[in-house]
Amino acid sequence: MSAENIAKEAKVAFYKTKNLSTIVKNQVLSDLVRLLEENKDKIKQENAKDMSDGKEKGLSPALLDRLELNDARIRSLQQSVLEIISLPDPIGEVIRGLNLPNGLQLLTKRVPIGVLMTIYESRPNVTIDVASLSFKAGNACILRGGSEAYHSNFILSSLFQEALQKNNLPKATVSSVQDTKRETIIPYLKLPKWIDVVVPRGGEGLVRFITEHSQIPVIKHDSGVTNLFVDSKADLELSKRVILNSKTQRPGVCNALENLLLHKDNPDNLELLLYLANNKVDLLLDEDSLKLGAHGKPAKTEDYFTEFLDYRLSVKIVSNVEEAVSFIRNYGSGHTECILSSNIETIEYFKREIDSAAVFVNCSTRFHDGGEFGLGAEVGISTGKLHVRGPMGLTHLTTTTTYLQGNGQVRV
Amino acid sequence: MSAENIAKEAKVAFYKTKNLSTIVKNQVLSDLVRLLEENKDKIKQENAKDMSDGKEKGLSPALLDRLELNDARIRSLQQSVLEIISLPDPIGEVIRGLNLPNGLQLLTKRVPIGVLMTIYESRPNVTIDVASLSFKAGNACILRGGSEAYHSNFILSSLFQEALQKNNLPKATVSSVQDTKRETIIPYLKLPKWIDVVVPRGGEGLVRFITEHSQIPVIKHDSGVTNLFVDSKADLELSKRVILNSKTQRPGVCNALENLLLHKDNPDNLELLLYLANNKVDLLLDEDSLKLGAHGKPAKTEDYFTEFLDYRLSVKIVSNVEEAVSFIRNYGSGHTECILSSNIETIEYFKREIDSAAVFVNCSTRFHDGGEFGLGAEVGISTGKLHVRGPMGLTHLTTTTTYLQGNGQVRV
Repeated sequence: MSAENIAKEAKVAFYKTKNLSTIVKNQVLSDLVRLLEENKDKIKQENAKDMSDGKEKGLSPALLDRLELNDARIRSLQQSVLEIISLPDPIGEVIRGLNLPNGLQLLTKRVPIGVLMTIYESRPNVTIDVASLSFKAGNACILRGGSEAYHSNFILSSLFQEALQKNNLPKATVSSVQDTKRETIIPYLKLPKWIDVVVPRGGEGLVRFITEHSQIPVIKHDSGVTNLFVDSKADLELSKRVILNSKTQRPGVCNALENLLLHKDNPDNLELLLYLANNKVDLLLDEDSLKLGAHGKPAKTEDYFTEFLDYRLSVKIVSNVEEAVSFIRNYGSGHTECILSSNIETIEYFKREIDSAAVFVNCSTRFHDGGEFGLGAEVGISTGKLHVRGPMGLTHLTTTTTYLQGNGQVRV
Repeated sequence: MSAENIAKEAKVAFYKTKNLSTIVKNQVLSDLVRLLEENKDKIKQENAKDMSDGKEKGLSPALLDRLELNDARIRSLQQSVLEIISLPDPIGEVIRGLNLPNGLQLLTKRVPIGVLMTIYESRPNVTIDVASLSFKAGNACILRGGSEAYHSNFILSSLFQEALQKNNLPKATVSSVQDTKRETIIPYLKLPKWIDVVVPRGGEGLVRFITEHSQIPVIKHDSGVTNLFVDSKADLELSKRVILNSKTQRPGVCNALENLLLHKDNPDNLELLLYLANNKVDLLLDEDSLKLGAHGKPAKTEDYFTEFLDYRLSVKIVSNVEEAVSFIRNYGSGHTECILSSNIETIEYFKREIDSAAVFVNCSTRFHDGGEFGLGAEVGISTGKLHVRGPMGLTHLTTTTTYLQGNGQVRV
């Protein structure tokens, strides 16, 4: 089927899902949980094909790990759907309501957005997470997973379609389109009449490609070049604990620390660096931090722009918080910035001057997450400034319609 | 100056305006009101140049009218700034705040978006309206007006800059860039690092051009192909009053009616059409409505897609509300749709099935407006679904930052 036909069918399906009751939507999701249980072995078989293709293609152990679906991961897929079932349905919520002076009754309500296209790489859990969130908010979606997860994505989206059909809903509510070539995405990006929003989840290259070609609004979830500044006065034990956690608790994600900025007058700089190096963190050091004597390689300018997603950390000595702020404005990606300090003026300056989705004080950067923020399951962390900045949850998969009820009012 | 330098300077200016107090922002706007008063004659002189250029170029009377700045219109510019002064400052508003289970204190606050670029046509009041709204929300802006209003836009933006400089703020907070060629907009649209959002206000051609070239998120304010459906049972006097008001109270704006759908079983169809024709509305009629006997020309398919912005109305007879809904899905632009009916099932069906920014029942389409909705001054009516749908006011010129305050918390 052509991109246009797939997108048109998705829009037709949307006109059905738009008005489904919460009970019906949750029923479909419950059926999906059961189907994931009943088809566990089949899912693992299909995933094994991707794993063996991946090994043949020489995928890194980290990528192969992201790809794998074992019993524990299938359970976690199910848990994620159960969590989405338990979330309140955002559709129909009145976000503004009043009587206008002329007697018109105004209600602005949350309604579904329409057709959502997600373009993502590697991890097959995105198939279930995004399709479930999108469906719970009354949208239709088109899923375009990475070619390396072809068989896994295919079986997972087929199970979703089975759950839909059991409830007399069209398969086109959740379409899965897969292809090995990036260029085949382009025709979809030229269909603003049928597709309402594009959500890329992946590396910077993918996101830039989508942004350049899309005539449809894009909510991007791209790189987290996360920065942490240690002020001249900051508790040493707190600093050690927070920095190590920010860098290593899960290095392969967007809220993991990438750039460490140390105030030149902090007496503990060497001890901090030694502590990190002793905990398997490879240090990339600027000229000043090299002189301190910790083991590391010299940092290049491009390192400070880089999301390593690995046990590697770029380090720079700065003269003051002003320099830290201008470094972050230049090298950061507006995702997560953190200050460790005991000085209220410095902290307030940092909070005021930084323009990012999240600004943290004296805690790990790893907390930038929908679940940790108490928002429930998320589509991802948006680094854009429009519609949603930070964790993109269920309510961000909605838009509004304003209803006016009158009895013949005209404008004078 | 190159597009990149202008955009960079705007971003630097934004870092200043980002944290201005409401008192300072209102002071600048008050100074602007005074400067508009003091320079009334100069504004009229500059506007006269545009008017005489326009007459030479053969602009239509309607366009010349949109262009003109007389005493009354300068007063209305001042009133609009005074209204923006009186609006509460959205910046700093906590939209979510709680303590997380681990003791982290979370605050999600409204913050300015950054640098806003507006690209607009003809009416010079947009210069003052958008710059004032943008500034009140702590943003910097780049204004790109239409070439036909060159002198008017130039004097108005210069006065804004004078108000800024009186308060020791950089001129780059409000930059005005003007050129006669549409192509010169393109370099700005490739600067997502410096410009955060592009807001085109103008015809469909302009908006499509921007959407196709922009790598920056776009909030579009394009055509309103507004539809009104008269059900089989609807009060005749109410229908006459509401339809005439929707079409003619101000035909040149986006919430004016363009397509009238009449239920085939409504006994008053002919009387309605005669009433409109008697009130100077040119009718474009489909085959069935032509047979009724009212005076009008046959409608072509493209007429139903067209925003006439004139005393012209496309008419179609439909068999039922289902046909009306599918007509609107196909021909409408998702702006404003209205039903006139006394039947609750039909009304509820219409409200449920339509996917537009506004759905009105038994009142004029002309009410789709920020002022009428009680939201105050607006940048325009957004026809997009993301970030804001419908009137775009002061709060929509903001984004959020989430602040976490801890004392050493790490993620486990």
